[in-house]
Amino acid sequence: MYKYLDKVNSPEDLKSLNIDEINLLANDIRKFLVKSLSKTGGHLSANLGVVELTLALHKVFDSPNDKIIWDVGHQSYVHKILTGRKEGFETLRQFKGMSGFPKEAESEHDIFDTGHSSTSISVASGLSCAKDIKNTKEKIVAVIGDGSITGGMALEAINHLGYIKKDMIIILNDNEMSIDKNVGGMATHLSSIIRSSRINKVKDDVKKILKKSKSGELAYKTVHKVKGSIVSNFLPQECDLFESLGIRYYGPIDGHNLKDLIDYLEFTKTRKGPILLHVITKKGRGYKFAENEPDKYHGVPKFDIKCGIKEKTSKTISTFVGEKLVDMARKDKDVVAITAAMPSGTGLSIFEKSYPNRYYDVGIAEQHATTFSAGLAKGGMKPYFAVYSSFLQRAYDQLIHDICITKKNVTFLIDRGGLVGNDGETHHGVFDLSYLNSIPNITVMAPKDIKELEIMMDFSLNYEEPLAIRYPRGDVYYLEKGEYKDMEIGKYEIISKGEKVLIIAIGLMVKHSLDAKEILLKENINPTIINARFLKHIDKNLLDNIIDDYDYIVTIEDNVITGGFGSRINKFVIDNDYNIKVRNLGIDDEFIEQGNVDDLYDLVGLSPEKIAEFIKKL
Amino acid sequence: MYKYLDKVNSPEDLKSLNIDEINLLANDIRKFLVKSLSKTGGHLSANLGVVELTLALHKVFDSPNDKIIWDVGHQSYVHKILTGRKEGFETLRQFKGMSGFPKEAESEHDIFDTGHSSTSISVASGLSCAKDIKNTKEKIVAVIGDGSITGGMALEAINHLGYIKKDMIIILNDNEMSIDKNVGGMATHLSSIIRSSRINKVKDDVKKILKKSKSGELAYKTVHKVKGSIVSNFLPQECDLFESLGIRYYGPIDGHNLKDLIDYLEFTKTRKGPILLHVITKKGRGYKFAENEPDKYHGVPKFDIKCGIKEKTSKTISTFVGEKLVDMARKDKDVVAITAAMPSGTGLSIFEKSYPNRYYDVGIAEQHATTFSAGLAKGGMKPYFAVYSSFLQRAYDQLIHDICITKKNVTFLIDRGGLVGNDGETHHGVFDLSYLNSIPNITVMAPKDIKELEIMMDFSLNYEEPLAIRYPRGDVYYLEKGEYKDMEIGKYEIISKGEKVLIIAIGLMVKHSLDAKEILLKENINPTIINARFLKHIDKNLLDNIIDDYDYIVTIEDNVITGGFGSRINKFVIDNDYNIKVRNLGIDDEFIEQGNVDDLYDLVGLSPEKIAEFIKKL
Repeated sequence: MYKYLDKVNSPEDLKSLNIDEINLLANDIRKFLVKSLSKTGGHLSANLGVVELTLALHKVFDSPNDKIIWDVGHQSYVHKILTGRKEGFETLRQFKGMSGFPKEAESEHDIFDTGHSSTSISVASGLSCAKDIKNTKEKIVAVIGDGSITGGMALEAINHLGYIKKDMIIILNDNEMSIDKNVGGMATHLSSIIRSSRINKVKDDVKKILKKSKSGELAYKTVHKVKGSIVSNFLPQECDLFESLGIRYYGPIDGHNLKDLIDYLEFTKTRKGPILLHVITKKGRGYKFAENEPDKYHGVPKFDIKCGIKEKTSKTISTFVGEKLVDMARKDKDVVAITAAMPSGTGLSIFEKSYPNRYYDVGIAEQHATTFSAGLAKGGMKPYFAVYSSFLQRAYDQLIHDICITKKNVTFLIDRGGLVGNDGETHHGVFDLSYLNSIPNITVMAPKDIKELEIMMDFSLNYEEPLAIRYPRGDVYYLEKGEYKDMEIGKYEIISKGEKVLIIAIGLMVKHSLDAKEILLKENINPTIINARFLKHIDKNLLDNIIDDYDYIVTIEDNVITGGFGSRINKFVIDNDYNIKVRNLGIDDEFIEQGNVDDLYDLVGLSPEKIAEFIKKL
Repeated sequence: MYKYLDKVNSPEDLKSLNIDEINLLANDIRKFLVKSLSKTGGHLSANLGVVELTLALHKVFDSPNDKIIWDVGHQSYVHKILTGRKEGFETLRQFKGMSGFPKEAESEHDIFDTGHSSTSISVASGLSCAKDIKNTKEKIVAVIGDGSITGGMALEAINHLGYIKKDMIIILNDNEMSIDKNVGGMATHLSSIIRSSRINKVKDDVKKILKKSKSGELAYKTVHKVKGSIVSNFLPQECDLFESLGIRYYGPIDGHNLKDLIDYLEFTKTRKGPILLHVITKKGRGYKFAENEPDKYHGVPKFDIKCGIKEKTSKTISTFVGEKLVDMARKDKDVVAITAAMPSGTGLSIFEKSYPNRYYDVGIAEQHATTFSAGLAKGGMKPYFAVYSSFLQRAYDQLIHDICITKKNVTFLIDRGGLVGNDGETHHGVFDLSYLNSIPNITVMAPKDIKELEIMMDFSLNYEEPLAIRYPRGDVYYLEKGEYKDMEIGKYEIISKGEKVLIIAIGLMVKHSLDAKEILLKENINPTIINARFLKHIDKNLLDNIIDDYDYIVTIEDNVITGGFGSRINKFVIDNDYNIKVRNLGIDDEFIEQGNVDDLYDLVGLSPEKIAEFIKKL
């Protein structure tokens, strides 16, 4: 079905192909990717952008002996195809299926698990140091995007690497984008390099010299020996940034020109010390819809190859939040919005359009975003930092040190709380209730539905201390149950009255509990359900009055049980010596794999059905 | 007593002094600092290094209208002297006394609370953006060291600032040190700038031009207008690093030459956009002991001015850990040690001397240190990352993402667990048990004393999953009570048998509990004390057998109660429907101020006396 792809099942199979054949293989791979992802969904743009780069890497290096580390990892599909996992694409990102990220457990070619950005240079540096001690000869390559490389930990790693000077190759995969358009001083600098005619002129000169030095069909090894010295003498090394940090810079080169890529990669193999090769790629390359709207085609659902992605008719919670924030900014000129390279994911794109001067995309930099927000608050603004739960993990210290000690007026709009689905272990937002719980001075709220989310956002406008509002991934939903009054700190709501079992649920779990109740009612089991709204504030008055009427309290949260919402209720019951049994539902001490969100909630016992089952057993 | 210092009580008082007078004031300040700190202890070297810089800043800028943000903040003593807080030095770093760091609550001149490094550029950027929106005219200045500026979040902030191009002045206070000697590509780059004769030559040329253009006693404003254009045309802007990121670079200049400092600072006021002024200072300047050993005189105890710091005869736990690790490295060639710019603080200096090739100081970079360690582990090494508890907060995401998901064989030697004393809110290690508790796949241990710490370190050598060993600040101590057997995961130890109350304590709190028991025995109260050793693993067998014999369990930990050790025990009791009352001792939901460690433990109810009192009341 694919003339070239069908013949390639391991990096070994690449070695015997010539440039023309590999270029044809690249075409096959693009077709395969588009076709395959149109059926399963997945990360499209990034992978279409690295087809030639990945082919060149596996042609030149000897994986898994040589170590290729993929930063972030959502661009590792081509690598997976070339390392014997074509079949895996049928189950891509599905429960028990192939991961959308590198997974050590999946293949010896996957050197390190990723998902969050900016880790590859640290990992590769560690491997390089180990190699040095063990005195082995493998090559170590980190492939990192121009967005990821601006993350603080990548910059820390570069600063360290430029000092220890270990042998290591950094491939800077520059598509001038993170998921959205890239920002930052480094991005501007890299752009100017790419656009500098002087550099391109020198590059052309070098090319001419290289051409002259070749006669006919010299083998690569010979070529690169000749070229080694030429390149090192003549190639432009104009990237002040990396050079000044002690990293040798080569490039920029065309990341879709296989010949150039292979030549340069062969050359890097001959160098000592840390090297950075600047490769220019185009996200979405070869599929017009993705080329035109690479952010939209970053993570795609199933789609029709000819028509592209169908416009969604439903509205996501993120979009709702973005729109609501625009509304608030209209009323209050102090409202400002911050994102760490996720304007579309967090719904802030619309804010950027409406209030560009009160909108800040700081790049992949959750630490800076948090403390920058604290600075804005100190300057009299009302900052809203919209961020995915699992990415805010990067700013745990800043939450403590810069936000909460001095009670800065910053609101965290925590998106993707709870299980997120197909991105798996690294992306679930199941630690936030625990890590926020332990920090004094921050109020944490989670709404039962969109109407309550809106009320909470209204509340935030005049709340002058640290605040977090946490909500799940997915489309807006309305319960239309219980009350919708102005928020009052620490007020629970009895959303459904019953008997014997007192369910205290938070956020999305209120909905699951109500759905569970529908199931239970058929068997004449009728638990009471409380919408807790608050992580830390316990409605003592309410509980004191009713607790004796029940045999069991069941706490329910879409978060790890340890240190989460349930632990607050446990302590409340224990401190007051209540004679009631308590059970905590939530996520056990383990990482949760990828899959459909509903399936995963079922897996961890938090689907309405599983909750009903649990209550029934009591 | 001090001819000039006595006359200065606010920045205003500086404005009327001429250069010569300010230089004499600088002498007074140095004398005052050395004398004052010899009585109270405190941060000496860093403050002696910034006397002229701070004077120049307050001469040129108009604090608190202009905002000066001190990164890390332990170098803000001169700033405190100049802003009306001379008297505060009598109570420096003491309970209810003046803080050793900037504190918004202490003075309107303290713009932002600090303690951890690398936050100032983020804060200042936030203030600059707020200023822009509010259309006000104040100047915003971040003062950051050459160590702090390599922290990831500072680099994130620079990348962002170079893009948004807001008006802001970064003073790079370059003493070529963090607390210990500085490392990293940036440090090398900055050094090379300082040592570049070409730059110094150009600088001299500029100086000559400046001299010629001045006639006699021109007022500063006139001078700097002339100079403004000269400097901007002629001054060397050779720092590729910052320039390439979009930050205008000026310098380097002598940070002990008041005249130069004032001239350059006046000049920076005339510039638009982000500016970095590179100022060279000497830590410990003017006090020979501190000049010679700036790291030793970083944080000093009380000392004799003529003789310097007395050598300690006791051994710290950190030193013990360093020596033990050297011992382990001798036996096992895979042992490697990592520090994030704290070789002396964590005890690793001795490791560096013994095994320089298996030792890595990565700079102020806890994120990178953690994932770098993961890389080393993947490469077959046994990495030990020694780090202060409160600084490891910076690597919470890396712990989850790079260490625990794939169970990397990395051991975290967590120093400064519990209350640390005079550094206050930002430095207490009271969140680690909670933030580690919520992360799956990591085993967390805390020893009752040094002998058990040694046993735990021996155990770590052959443990192949993520491990944290947490211990307090202070000198080594031996209990010589209970057993000292090889570690077995999840085994509690009944260290003292009694009745009615079952104390389950962890780490240092085992010692406090034993001391409390001594007090209680006088009143014939005899609780049983368990040494838990493990944060997460509950010794179910042991507890099942004895739990019915007791009326109360009291958990004791030097950590916030929320999400900590006690919450595990609460859940155990609740899950098993035990009919026993439980009380959690630990730190409530609040930040703990500075003070003597013993006083603070008393304050939070964790001193032996307070524990005894609590037990008695039960």
